[in-house]
Amino acid sequence: MPTNTWTRHHILSLADFTAFEYDTVLQTAASFQEVLSRRTKKVPTLQGQVVANLFFEPSTRTRSSFELAAKRLSADTLTFTSATSSITKGETILDTAKTYLAMGTDIMVIRHREAGVPSAIAQEMDRLGVRVSVLNAGDGQHEHPSQALLDLFTICTLLDPNYPQIELLKNKKIVIVGDILHSRVARSNIWSLTASGAQVHLAAPPTLLPKLFADYGEDRPGKLFLHWELEPALQDADFVMTLRLQKERMTANLLPSLREYHQLFGVTHSKLKLCQPNVKVLHPGPVNRGVEISSELMDDPEFSLIQTQITSGVAVRMALLYLIGSGKV
Amino acid sequence: MPTNTWTRHHILSLADFTAFEYDTVLQTAASFQEVLSRRTKKVPTLQGQVVANLFFEPSTRTRSSFELAAKRLSADTLTFTSATSSITKGETILDTAKTYLAMGTDIMVIRHREAGVPSAIAQEMDRLGVRVSVLNAGDGQHEHPSQALLDLFTICTLLDPNYPQIELLKNKKIVIVGDILHSRVARSNIWSLTASGAQVHLAAPPTLLPKLFADYGEDRPGKLFLHWELEPALQDADFVMTLRLQKERMTANLLPSLREYHQLFGVTHSKLKLCQPNVKVLHPGPVNRGVEISSELMDDPEFSLIQTQITSGVAVRMALLYLIGSGKV
Amino acid sequence: MPTNTWTRHHILSLADFTAFEYDTVLQTAASFQEVLSRRTKKVPTLQGQVVANLFFEPSTRTRSSFELAAKRLSADTLTFTSATSSITKGETILDTAKTYLAMGTDIMVIRHREAGVPSAIAQEMDRLGVRVSVLNAGDGQHEHPSQALLDLFTICTLLDPNYPQIELLKNKKIVIVGDILHSRVARSNIWSLTASGAQVHLAAPPTLLPKLFADYGEDRPGKLFLHWELEPALQDADFVMTLRLQKERMTANLLPSLREYHQLFGVTHSKLKLCQPNVKVLHPGPVNRGVEISSELMDDPEFSLIQTQITSGVAVRMALLYLIGSGKV
Repeated sequence: MPTNTWTRHHILSLADFTAFEYDTVLQTAASFQEVLSRRTKKVPTLQGQVVANLFFEPSTRTRSSFELAAKRLSADTLTFTSATSSITKGETILDTAKTYLAMGTDIMVIRHREAGVPSAIAQEMDRLGVRVSVLNAGDGQHEHPSQALLDLFTICTLLDPNYPQIELLKNKKIVIVGDILHSRVARSNIWSLTASGAQVHLAAPPTLLPKLFADYGEDRPGKLFLHWELEPALQDADFVMTLRLQKERMTANLLPSLREYHQLFGVTHSKLKLCQPNVKVLHPGPVNRGVEISSELMDDPEFSLIQTQITSGVAVRMALLYLIGSGKV
Repeated sequence: MPTNTWTRHHILSLADFTAFEYDTVLQTAASFQEVLSRRTKKVPTLQGQVVANLFFEPSTRTRSSFELAAKRLSADTLTFTSATSSITKGETILDTAKTYLAMGTDIMVIRHREAGVPSAIAQEMDRLGVRVSVLNAGDGQHEHPSQALLDLFTICTLLDPNYPQIELLKNKKIVIVGDILHSRVARSNIWSLTASGAQVHLAAPPTLLPKLFADYGEDRPGKLFLHWELEPALQDADFVMTLRLQKERMTANLLPSLREYHQLFGVTHSKLKLCQPNVKVLHPGPVNRGVEISSELMDDPEFSLIQTQITSGVAVRMALLYLIGSGKV
Repeated sequence: MPTNTWTRHHILSLADFTAFEYDTVLQTAASFQEVLSRRTKKVPTLQGQVVANLFFEPSTRTRSSFELAAKRLSADTLTFTSATSSITKGETILDTAKTYLAMGTDIMVIRHREAGVPSAIAQEMDRLGVRVSVLNAGDGQHEHPSQALLDLFTICTLLDPNYPQIELLKNKKIVIVGDILHSRVARSNIWSLTASGAQVHLAAPPTLLPKLFADYGEDRPGKLFLHWELEPALQDADFVMTLRLQKERMTANLLPSLREYHQLFGVTHSKLKLCQPNVKVLHPGPVNRGVEISSELMDDPEFSLIQTQITSGVAVRMALLYLIGSGKV
């Protein structure tokens, strides 16, 4: 049990997350998971606080997950999506954020199609000397910390439901397969998994996995491996994380056909035979069935953790909102 | 008072609703109607439960009505509309539903432009062995059970405010006039009204009322009648249900002009003289004033139940959410 | 302290607001401002009541501000925006309003791009003899009362935080500069500021400030002045209210270039030297930085009240909802 205390005010990136922070998120999420199994699934933790979901890029699943997490902590929520925004009126993003600040927002959950926007907003809030926390809900191809943390929680609670901790991942072999180049989920997962001591194997066609990705492993030697074929990566793997393939990549000539992609890099029951017998598969959703993963595998509860990930998402987001928000009131 | 107990888990269609079920809905709605007249209009019945409104087809009135019903039962609500959905990202509808399931949804209220979608989702939920309930909020041209139940409640509470029950409709003459062919409201009303023992008279131009509609009355002989002219249908009617006319029907050559349609099948004060003196008129809304009903008649409180229907809608939807939801927690 | 009582049922225009009413709004808002500084920022004042935000014209900031105000009074909220409306199905605006009435709405907050819509809805509600209150959240180029009241509150609390009252504005010189012709904010502010005894100076190019604006001051002689150049207006001013410039005005040939507009009518540090040393600047937002106001000035806390206005907005809107809503339950 950590004897340290939580001091991080914004959650923008996992690049500098400490082992203590990972474990605190995992253990806090575990306690909220327990709340969610009760008859009354709400706790008054953030009563009277305002969580503003500023989604400059549309999202159903992440927005709903954060909204529900906030409501279960009894916070009031404000939701902004780009379709109904003042952005069209020429207001800058920082001004939009400052508007929500001035209204009394305590936590801003921000998604934007450009990398760095949540950080820029967090810096501005700090410059202004205000106590608002910023949570990056996905910025361009940069990071998606809450997704990687829910993936971590999903894996760790599988390994030890009572005491999830990153220690459990030591020397586990975890494959991340798919459009790594364009994936903020992959980048955040590389940080969390290598920090946990896992061996992370990236697999994708060369167009979607440039050599420079090896740089992510520089500080953590022997933890990150690149593969331009799937099979060697899968050998004895404990977990396989599949990524969503943006179909637009085809038109950009980064890929041949979807059929060929599936044949080479799609994850199927048959390819999983190369892995450990109790291997599990993850996907951040939404899934293109039959492209990055076969439809049968996605629905097979023996292998697929995809539904568990979504459930974990609510508990992990409650934990994040709690950790950055509870010191405020 | 029914001595039976409620066992229905999903509300998808009225085709097999029993007399006990209709009466239970009516009486439960009556008790919520009473709640809505109190100073504090909320009850804690569904506190901590999540009602997800999955509207794959946009709707203002039905969505707001369900949202308000859920809030007055103290549930948390999540709203999904197709404009902001992952559907555009290629996810299947079942996967969207399973996402909301995994987040912890207790009741899914589903509208879709294709018939059968709510049923398909309910079957999938049952197959998965989960306790989520599905409520059909309108599927294609198939059914719109909550609308027919609020129509039933509106009529029955008019006949006996203290003890609404389907028995009250026995041998009442009820006319349904308009675009029956394309109407899910008409189909659900045919089930509920014939089951109640009313005499249901359908009236529309032949293009909007094919002969095969007589099949709906096969199991309930002497209860369903078809008319291709309005006047004979109206003779001595107790209630006249008008339907919304989709203006797109004109372009499909199913109808001459709106003016001619109004002249032949629009309901007006003058045509109502054929009915019982205390006849009442209903409409599910939104109304095309001067097309399916005259503007004057719509606003005449002596004849029009249209506003009452909307008010009934909140109480009936509270009843439905309560009946399928209260056993869960 | 006023010994009178609040009787106004709708808030549609400030044209006939009394001194008592202004002071009541200011003092009620001050007490809610105090609530907002507490640990728990919610009060149960409107528990069980329904506030419907009917935004026929999209808005982020005003809608969020009203939503948050309603939630902090513990009301349930329903939000309608034109994108998801039945308006596209041919329903009239009055019918939409009556639908929300029938569902049990207690207060309707209405924005529409045409002047007079909130009034028309309020009249219809009164004609029907129902107790629903209507609050104009901006109608065409007519009025935006809650914006002018939050401007008033911002100024008065600056002058006396403990006891904001219109008396404080007597003989203050207040400049309104910008696109006055098309501004509902300007019109509402002219009413409130002249009623408060301030000297109101309007400044804009002749195309955006027709002579007929002098009529607004007819009943309040010596209170309203028109300027077609900015500098004489700024002379010894205590407050400068800048207005948003709709860029569409350019294409309508009402203005030369944005650059020239900024040079002549944009408010900057340098132009403020003409004013009182402790002059303050306001803007209703969203701001076109570098057009109606310089970016540096907007962000300078010594002069800019723009963030304070947004914060005041929540307290003032809580006050308005409270004043028209609390007699209802």
